[in-house]
Amino acid sequence: MSGGARVVALSGGIGGAKLALGLYRALPPDALTVVCNTGDDFVHLGLHVSPDVDTVLYTLAAIANRAQGWGREGETWSFMQALERLGGETWFRLGDGDLAVHVERTRRLAAGESLSAVTETLRRALGVRATVLPMCDTPLPTIVHTADGRLPFQEYFVKLRCTPAVTGFEYRGAADAVPAPGVTHALVDAGLEAVVICPSNPFISVDPILAVPGMRNALAACAGPVIAVSPVIGGRAVKGPTGKMMGELGLEVSAAAVATHYGDLLDGFVVDPADAALADALDVPCLVTPTLMRDDADKVALAEAVLAFARGLD
Amino acid sequence: MSGGARVVALSGGIGGAKLALGLYRALPPDALTVVCNTGDDFVHLGLHVSPDVDTVLYTLAAIANRAQGWGREGETWSFMQALERLGGETWFRLGDGDLAVHVERTRRLAAGESLSAVTETLRRALGVRATVLPMCDTPLPTIVHTADGRLPFQEYFVKLRCTPAVTGFEYRGAADAVPAPGVTHALVDAGLEAVVICPSNPFISVDPILAVPGMRNALAACAGPVIAVSPVIGGRAVKGPTGKMMGELGLEVSAAAVATHYGDLLDGFVVDPADAALADALDVPCLVTPTLMRDDADKVALAEAVLAFARGLD
Repeated sequence: MSGGARVVALSGGIGGAKLALGLYRALPPDALTVVCNTGDDFVHLGLHVSPDVDTVLYTLAAIANRAQGWGREGETWSFMQALERLGGETWFRLGDGDLAVHVERTRRLAAGESLSAVTETLRRALGVRATVLPMCDTPLPTIVHTADGRLPFQEYFVKLRCTPAVTGFEYRGAADAVPAPGVTHALVDAGLEAVVICPSNPFISVDPILAVPGMRNALAACAGPVIAVSPVIGGRAVKGPTGKMMGELGLEVSAAAVATHYGDLLDGFVVDPADAALADALDVPCLVTPTLMRDDADKVALAEAVLAFARGLD
Repeated sequence: MSGGARVVALSGGIGGAKLALGLYRALPPDALTVVCNTGDDFVHLGLHVSPDVDTVLYTLAAIANRAQGWGREGETWSFMQALERLGGETWFRLGDGDLAVHVERTRRLAAGESLSAVTETLRRALGVRATVLPMCDTPLPTIVHTADGRLPFQEYFVKLRCTPAVTGFEYRGAADAVPAPGVTHALVDAGLEAVVICPSNPFISVDPILAVPGMRNALAACAGPVIAVSPVIGGRAVKGPTGKMMGELGLEVSAAAVATHYGDLLDGFVVDPADAALADALDVPCLVTPTLMRDDADKVALAEAVLAFARGLD
């Protein structure tokens, strides 16, 4: 890594990747390390799929499908069509180009490479200059506890479209996990300017990362402030099941509840002007700035505001 | 199977599949059993690829790419393009739709299904009414002995484009193999009208099938005549490396040499009018009829001629 400020972002999929892209554009390209949730990872059709790692890679490589929110732009779907004719499982959509990543990842994992080594190969091949890391190299699947029983994440998320009411979460395998190589290295960096918890779902995107033993301590001890950007704006989640989950868990659907959820971990919190009134009520320093990212300019503007806020917290 | 005459075809890829299609169209649809070479099978990118089984399935399902000679019509190539960008192995071309078959086959094999059970599932899904069987359920890879050493089949065939001079062949694992379920059943059928050895390469398409222990005895004992259609016409192979191989093995490149190669196995042999002069010189009964299959009408005409020849041999 070159000299100068370094930033670590903790990210899930879509929402997190948006701010990661803003940070990537706002910073020197090799200054950013994105630690990705792998609690969504699963083996599907015999292939190792890492949805959040791929969304971050595709987003930073500028090949993500923005309209769809997942997968690749200009994608074709011949594989799924042919698989459907064969009576195969089609509830999880894999585009033809996307499939190359899963096949190559699976092949390399089977050959004994670690998930982080495979991710590094993919990153280079896609021309991404930020460091992109899985949170850990061992399986740490998120299990969703619901009124209908315990469900593997993708079954809850994609197959059942988040319909069952959530009662809690389990990060299975957490006790035996260690942060992937590079994660701790990035966090102990004396030149670390900030850790940004992206506006991802706290329960299914960020908490799995925090469940890796050593992560919370590393965040508490790191040189830069830990700043979370609220995924809730004006009492509603921008995207996905965050609001629904908070309600089902008996939490208020608010940016304040997100800040409370992260608690002592935070040195700073970023809310949208819609939540300006909340800012004063919180114990943690708050930045009020537009957090809805509709285009790349929004992403870069938010990233720059977060970085300036971080510098002010030092 | 319904009553009436039944026919077994032994087939490799393209050339064999052409006559298999002719037989499929010439016979009641459930009267045909195609036993496919699996000596070409290999694991590529972690996926179990069965090129000859798939060529036969695609051809009978009328979804084969005729211009290309392999793969599927209307295919897209996003997977290969994306894989190339990732630095993956691209010497063996897998189309996006084709990939669905390999992924589904691999998934089912990993779940404990046999290759013949998987093939049966694929056959049904593709709407093929003929019985399509792999020659055996265990790996029996063809190893090509060449002046450059021993080569796995696809490395010789696709990667090196059949360039190294052939010195012999090895059907590895043959000692432990047994015919796939259904193969023996089809051959002991008292109503078997004929066994047709399709105009496939004798060394790399038909001999692997004959190398499965029990196959030669079953062919010698079966109710119908065993009839081979020459893949060599007028001293040249219609397609592929058959002629080159015969030359390298010190054999005459001729239909007669093919008949000699099969020897006692044959009850009848079919040659093109270009080889009419040879017919009288052979010890085995010969049918002289056009064997070059340029379109579907040629395939059906050859199939009907072979079936009439078989009935005349009874």
